[in-house]
Amino acid sequence: MNKTAKKIMGAMLALSMILGVGYTVNNQINPQPVVAATDSAVKYSGKTPKYVFMFIGDGMSFPQIQAAQYYKGVEEHGAIDAKKGNYPNPEKLSFMNFPVTGTVTTYDSTSLCPDSASTATALSTGNKTLSSVINMDETKTKSYETITEKLKKQLGYKIGIVSSVNIDHATPGAYYAHVPARSEYYSMGLQLVDSNFDYFAGGKFLSDDSKEVKEQGKTKIGELAKEKGYTVVNTKADIEKLKKGDKAIAVCPDDQVEKESGAIKYSLDRIGDEFTLADYTKKGIEVLDNDKGFFMMVEGGKIDWAGHANDAASNIHDTEAFGDAVQEAINFYNAHPDETLILVTGDHETGGLTIGFAGTNYDTYLQNLSNQKVSYTQFDRSVAKFRENKTSFDDAMKSVEANFGLKRAGSTGESTKGGMILTSSEEAKIKAAYEKSMVPKDSRKLNEDENVMYGTYEPFSVTLTHILNNKSGISFSSYSHTGIPVAMMAKGQGQDLFAGYYDNTNVFDKIKSITKVK
Amino acid sequence: MNKTAKKIMGAMLALSMILGVGYTVNNQINPQPVVAATDSAVKYSGKTPKYVFMFIGDGMSFPQIQAAQYYKGVEEHGAIDAKKGNYPNPEKLSFMNFPVTGTVTTYDSTSLCPDSASTATALSTGNKTLSSVINMDETKTKSYETITEKLKKQLGYKIGIVSSVNIDHATPGAYYAHVPARSEYYSMGLQLVDSNFDYFAGGKFLSDDSKEVKEQGKTKIGELAKEKGYTVVNTKADIEKLKKGDKAIAVCPDDQVEKESGAIKYSLDRIGDEFTLADYTKKGIEVLDNDKGFFMMVEGGKIDWAGHANDAASNIHDTEAFGDAVQEAINFYNAHPDETLILVTGDHETGGLTIGFAGTNYDTYLQNLSNQKVSYTQFDRSVAKFRENKTSFDDAMKSVEANFGLKRAGSTGESTKGGMILTSSEEAKIKAAYEKSMVPKDSRKLNEDENVMYGTYEPFSVTLTHILNNKSGISFSSYSHTGIPVAMMAKGQGQDLFAGYYDNTNVFDKIKSITKVK
Repeated sequence: MNKTAKKIMGAMLALSMILGVGYTVNNQINPQPVVAATDSAVKYSGKTPKYVFMFIGDGMSFPQIQAAQYYKGVEEHGAIDAKKGNYPNPEKLSFMNFPVTGTVTTYDSTSLCPDSASTATALSTGNKTLSSVINMDETKTKSYETITEKLKKQLGYKIGIVSSVNIDHATPGAYYAHVPARSEYYSMGLQLVDSNFDYFAGGKFLSDDSKEVKEQGKTKIGELAKEKGYTVVNTKADIEKLKKGDKAIAVCPDDQVEKESGAIKYSLDRIGDEFTLADYTKKGIEVLDNDKGFFMMVEGGKIDWAGHANDAASNIHDTEAFGDAVQEAINFYNAHPDETLILVTGDHETGGLTIGFAGTNYDTYLQNLSNQKVSYTQFDRSVAKFRENKTSFDDAMKSVEANFGLKRAGSTGESTKGGMILTSSEEAKIKAAYEKSMVPKDSRKLNEDENVMYGTYEPFSVTLTHILNNKSGISFSSYSHTGIPVAMMAKGQGQDLFAGYYDNTNVFDKIKSITKVK
Repeated sequence: MNKTAKKIMGAMLALSMILGVGYTVNNQINPQPVVAATDSAVKYSGKTPKYVFMFIGDGMSFPQIQAAQYYKGVEEHGAIDAKKGNYPNPEKLSFMNFPVTGTVTTYDSTSLCPDSASTATALSTGNKTLSSVINMDETKTKSYETITEKLKKQLGYKIGIVSSVNIDHATPGAYYAHVPARSEYYSMGLQLVDSNFDYFAGGKFLSDDSKEVKEQGKTKIGELAKEKGYTVVNTKADIEKLKKGDKAIAVCPDDQVEKESGAIKYSLDRIGDEFTLADYTKKGIEVLDNDKGFFMMVEGGKIDWAGHANDAASNIHDTEAFGDAVQEAINFYNAHPDETLILVTGDHETGGLTIGFAGTNYDTYLQNLSNQKVSYTQFDRSVAKFRENKTSFDDAMKSVEANFGLKRAGSTGESTKGGMILTSSEEAKIKAAYEKSMVPKDSRKLNEDENVMYGTYEPFSVTLTHILNNKSGISFSSYSHTGIPVAMMAKGQGQDLFAGYYDNTNVFDKIKSITKVK
């Protein structure tokens, strides 16, 4: 942010202060007085919560939350049909019952459609920066101190960082590292090891594939961490053994990982009792629990990835899984209501998700999404095999019916209105995408319209999710992040500071004020 | 809502009560204690505000508000360009500084994508009903009492109802009428006359064109209102003359009206000092002001219409005009801070607006929208002339450049990246739409894909707004309402009750609780 921008932001904020930020007394928690402030922080003189949870749904904004609530409702109570008296009956995610909500703007110094590095920098340090920069300024020379560093140093809080994607991805990284480019995984890993933070959990280290490791032969981050005294575990049995007081790094076990990315699998692809984000969160609470307090950041990172791919079913199921992770914090809150603050927010919206489609008008058929059995990532593996085996379109369409429920017009049964039979236009689109997918990736060329239709995704897979989405009354408009604001839901000590419509940099200011760090 | 649904809703609400709805004390206003309640209303024992404003942006949700904030920023500070240090610099709308925000679900008994009749019924009476029903139950036999009726009857408040669309449109109608179908304009008009409410302002009566007036020769509603003692005015001079204590109906003057609809013009089409929604609001405050108190509902109705038509520029400008109307209430609040409550919300989202587009990725070029000089409605008039005069495509494209800034590839100057020169694919789409628009309306046939491309709109106009939107980094996904939640922004006595993520029926419960009506 330039100086003029900062001045205006400051003035706007001072105005919003003057207009009245209050304090709250309720049945559960103690008075939390707030006094109007002249700087960009909100002054708070209530009790400092010892336990602070920061849940970040990557790419999760109002549309993602709402789609999940409505999908859960349909899943539980059946398809909506006013004529039969089956009215909509939504089922709230855990955090939708939080008493305070805010609305948070997400733009960064580069764009109104920011990236996860800059938005996590704003949440973690209160500063805007360029897309792809983590916790450094726009000149990439000055580092900003993070809320985790402050809490560790000034209050002795233990720090936990959990993500469903790689531990050194941008969002988790912004809670322990400072780098000019989010792709500097090895550098981030070194900073992770030096952070002395207490619990890291999530997908595998991207730094294991960095040039530092692969070409320069440097030691893997996990090994360095062990040398520094971390317990580094990556089997189910070892992760389960982690206990209170351990200083640990829990890496997604090889037999549970999404092989293309090293991330935890999509909730939709999960098999049996594979660890969920909720499991890693619950374990984190156990490991971190101590009398001085802790701060835990938990990222639902694959909500974003599913949004990029325009895969509504994976998006919704991972949003639900994120809600389950928040439930673990709520369980902890219920045992420590006077000492806990839970924040649930997003970093930006991804995909331009809307609950509506030009072809279905006022109708939605969210129940259709339950026909999708695998994520686009898993289906991409099938597409690779189709290409390799030169599988015919007819045979590929059998797999489509099995995995997405989309039926060719020759199939019998239901009508097309709200049903799953493909129209001739839809089938033509799928056929064109199939043909594009059968061309080896490096010799594919996309024209302007195909770029809009497929983005950088496997044409066959993304066309199938687009059509299933649309048949469900759901649309996406982009393969990137968008500029709509995100939700902030707050529960516990200091919750009321999170009311209003404000900027993501203010989230840091508010946490700083509530925890009284400098 | 069926009985089971009601039970579950009740239980969910009770749970959210238990989880803690607090009360607030701040610098400006008096304590407003809230006690957990077992019924669906939130109990409030603070001071009852004498002056309650309910602003409803029809079709306005988070994306509309955010797009307007970002557009204002670009308009004021120039295009975003991180390389030149011109970072995003948003400009808040008046109500974005309100201290409390909530998130509100909007589904009705018919659909997750509800209509304005049922959503206004929820806001006005606290009941879900079928789409198109106003203030009656799903069987269309039982009437629900409105918040306006309660306030008038029990507290003697004066009632004002203002809209930028027709006075007998669904949203304003839901604050004075009870009808099984929103199209029963004459019946609504009769109820308006019988309401004994104090100030109506907005577009012309749709009932003037009803079968009752046109075929059955019944007296126009305006005339009946005069007989009942209303001052009915429809010239600028007469509206300006309205004063405190008048019982008045101010109808948009003939020389200012949008002729196709009878509504107030789009902000973008406004000429000179034609009355704005803010002017009708300001006049309403003057007319209604009295010691017992008043309730005024003000609808920004054409945000919705522009959303339906996927006209982003008109949408944004009307959202800004809506913000200006709220500013009038803020001015009043500043003189009566202890006695006023201002609520600003939407009834549903329209159009599936997103700040992002698959073709522009992380970039937006909102400044491009400033090239649009007229609303789609006004451009439709040109298209009708093109059809009548058999205007050539080349000549029509001159008008396109003048009104939307879209330049054919033959034009010179700027590059296409973020610029206004049409790609060959874009020009092909415009040409196809032009040809479709040159066919007389009643002999046009649209196939499945054309239905998605044009909806029920003039193909040429809607294709131009789509392309300008996309070149600006904006998309729409639907011509209908969508299911994403709306924002609630609250300021003044009782504001804290509006925090959280709740249903639109609870908005009524909260107002009822704050005003202590039964």
